[in-house]
Amino acid sequence: MSDPVIAGAGLTRFGKYPDATLRGMAHEAIAAALADAGILPRDVQAVFSGNAMAGLITGQEMVRAQVVTRSIGISGVPVVNVENACASGSSAVHLASAAVASGQYDLVLAFGAEKMTHTDRRRAVLAVATALDIEEGFDESSASPFMDVYAAKVRAYLRDSEATVEDLGRVVVKAQGNGLLNPLAQYGGRITVEEVLADPVISDPLTRMMCSPIGDGAAAVVVASRAAARRLGVTEPVTIRASVLRSGSDPEAGDAAGYRAARAAYEQAGIGPYDLNVVELHDAAASAELMRYESLQLVPRGEGCRLIREGTTKLGGKLPVNPSGGLLARGHPIGATGCAQIAEVYRQLRGRAGDHQVEGARVGLADNGGGWIRGDSAAECVHILVAE
Amino acid sequence: MSDPVIAGAGLTRFGKYPDATLRGMAHEAIAAALADAGILPRDVQAVFSGNAMAGLITGQEMVRAQVVTRSIGISGVPVVNVENACASGSSAVHLASAAVASGQYDLVLAFGAEKMTHTDRRRAVLAVATALDIEEGFDESSASPFMDVYAAKVRAYLRDSEATVEDLGRVVVKAQGNGLLNPLAQYGGRITVEEVLADPVISDPLTRMMCSPIGDGAAAVVVASRAAARRLGVTEPVTIRASVLRSGSDPEAGDAAGYRAARAAYEQAGIGPYDLNVVELHDAAASAELMRYESLQLVPRGEGCRLIREGTTKLGGKLPVNPSGGLLARGHPIGATGCAQIAEVYRQLRGRAGDHQVEGARVGLADNGGGWIRGDSAAECVHILVAE
Repeated sequence: MSDPVIAGAGLTRFGKYPDATLRGMAHEAIAAALADAGILPRDVQAVFSGNAMAGLITGQEMVRAQVVTRSIGISGVPVVNVENACASGSSAVHLASAAVASGQYDLVLAFGAEKMTHTDRRRAVLAVATALDIEEGFDESSASPFMDVYAAKVRAYLRDSEATVEDLGRVVVKAQGNGLLNPLAQYGGRITVEEVLADPVISDPLTRMMCSPIGDGAAAVVVASRAAARRLGVTEPVTIRASVLRSGSDPEAGDAAGYRAARAAYEQAGIGPYDLNVVELHDAAASAELMRYESLQLVPRGEGCRLIREGTTKLGGKLPVNPSGGLLARGHPIGATGCAQIAEVYRQLRGRAGDHQVEGARVGLADNGGGWIRGDSAAECVHILVAE
Repeated sequence: MSDPVIAGAGLTRFGKYPDATLRGMAHEAIAAALADAGILPRDVQAVFSGNAMAGLITGQEMVRAQVVTRSIGISGVPVVNVENACASGSSAVHLASAAVASGQYDLVLAFGAEKMTHTDRRRAVLAVATALDIEEGFDESSASPFMDVYAAKVRAYLRDSEATVEDLGRVVVKAQGNGLLNPLAQYGGRITVEEVLADPVISDPLTRMMCSPIGDGAAAVVVASRAAARRLGVTEPVTIRASVLRSGSDPEAGDAAGYRAARAAYEQAGIGPYDLNVVELHDAAASAELMRYESLQLVPRGEGCRLIREGTTKLGGKLPVNPSGGLLARGHPIGATGCAQIAEVYRQLRGRAGDHQVEGARVGLADNGGGWIRGDSAAECVHILVAE
């Protein structure tokens, strides 16, 4: 087994596109990824696709990916629809990576796509809440039942760590600043911590700007064996050095899924946190960025706020985090996000990130989480990519 | 790589259980499979789960499997939700099989579960129709939009082959007779061809008894490496000799997906149609059984009716097909079916099928299809199992 190579990636701009279809956005991302890899639809040997809520938003269940692949000329090959809440896109890449690593295929397409905007805005908010165990119930009248989960976590976190609400504001200021440099980001702007804190509260203490927005978009990557990548003329491959998926366990059972996934990824890659040059992490809420600094073992527990205060994770800092703008600014079309993070890290490692390029980045990590069940994530997926 | 082994299987009885939950049924099947394999929840290294319509029926999207696995004590490990219409369950087994064959894991759980009964019966019928490309639309007033697809196919088939509607009746008579011998079947009875033909028409020429019923249920299998199976004391392993997934292509492009999947499975297994002792195939409508005799290459095209007329595929015949009762009588809870077929074949090869046992069966095939897009299946999944 040799590490799979990312041979191409494509992304739509994320945003609110009431008139865009899931299929159309997926086509755009796939076409860009295939063109980047220099292959045709008929060269694709298998497809893994992530989507989380089409059933509830567009009404298309069951064959979500096949309606996309058939209409773009990818036909006959194995197609698997993968659903893992906000980690659907990375789970699709994880399966693609495993299928290439094992020698089963040597050119596999992974894509993630999500259509969240709906004439009934409430429908998207409640669809996101199905990333919870619906049998346990949630407050349907809440502004965002899923953000209530993040809010409960951050209240505990603010109590147990040095972090303050101002640190949450600093995360948003960084995200919006980075988003301004990324033409594919949903949002971006020069704002102040005060403005973030003064925004309407969605779920105390999270203000609107501290929550990832509803949006639409798609992302795709082509995963290739080393031999196939060579045939395609890839001379400086970006390899998937680690691809790890974990689910949650009861909090008293030990480390949370995000921490375990990261640790396993570092072990699999033979790479430590301080080898990283760039990180795209799952800031579905601003607080998650601070907590994920810790689950990714960039700093000891409780010290996440240090990285944002000291500027370590800003563009130009020692370890830029979410130079794309992250979920807060690039946007978070649920099933697309995990794939988009990996596509972003790939672009960084190829030196193609444009105005939000991290100079000289050679090692990057993408960290994607999904769902919440009884005190832990439903899915956590970590990829480590290396430019060789 | 050595062929993966099925180390255990579990099935609920299929039926209409308005009060049963998806989770409860999944638990029952998983517990039975783990007990059969002699392992505990904590021994499971990864989970692949098939479900097709929970989003539209129960409202739970995104983390459908995790809510099941967390509450049964399987935690921490990779969990992937797979959705491939009526081939969801077999697609889950396909991924489990590939993950074990590659050496990634050596004890993997695959399960399929579906809750179809709903206080609004119409909701289930329309949810099944999302196995079509909903952008192309369908007749929402139809008794069953998805059966309309089968009906159109059978009208062409009756025109182009020797088959008659009486042959469709014979398929149902066989299915119901077999169902009577299977305590886990949803239906079963001694009926006549005339009764089948006199049943109300769902979509001409398909009568109600020619269509698989709405039902609830779950099935699970434990897929193990040969080494792990040995450790578990499996002395006469049932191995997965072939596991093939294909998607559809445009009809003019050549053979349909079902035919291509079968051919690839025979090649992968080094086994031909005439080596088979038992088959479980996807008779979502009675006509599909005749057409699948052909796509499985048991007989030349157009000659499927011969096998049902000559009694070749009845219990006691040369090659019993659907001794469980198949989708028509055992039932067809969408996401559970593919896994149930594989569990059935496994039981046959272990000599544990009770009153519907095929004497001395050593080689079996499970053939599962899902969805329909522009003239071909969205997914076709074929497994060949061998008792060594």
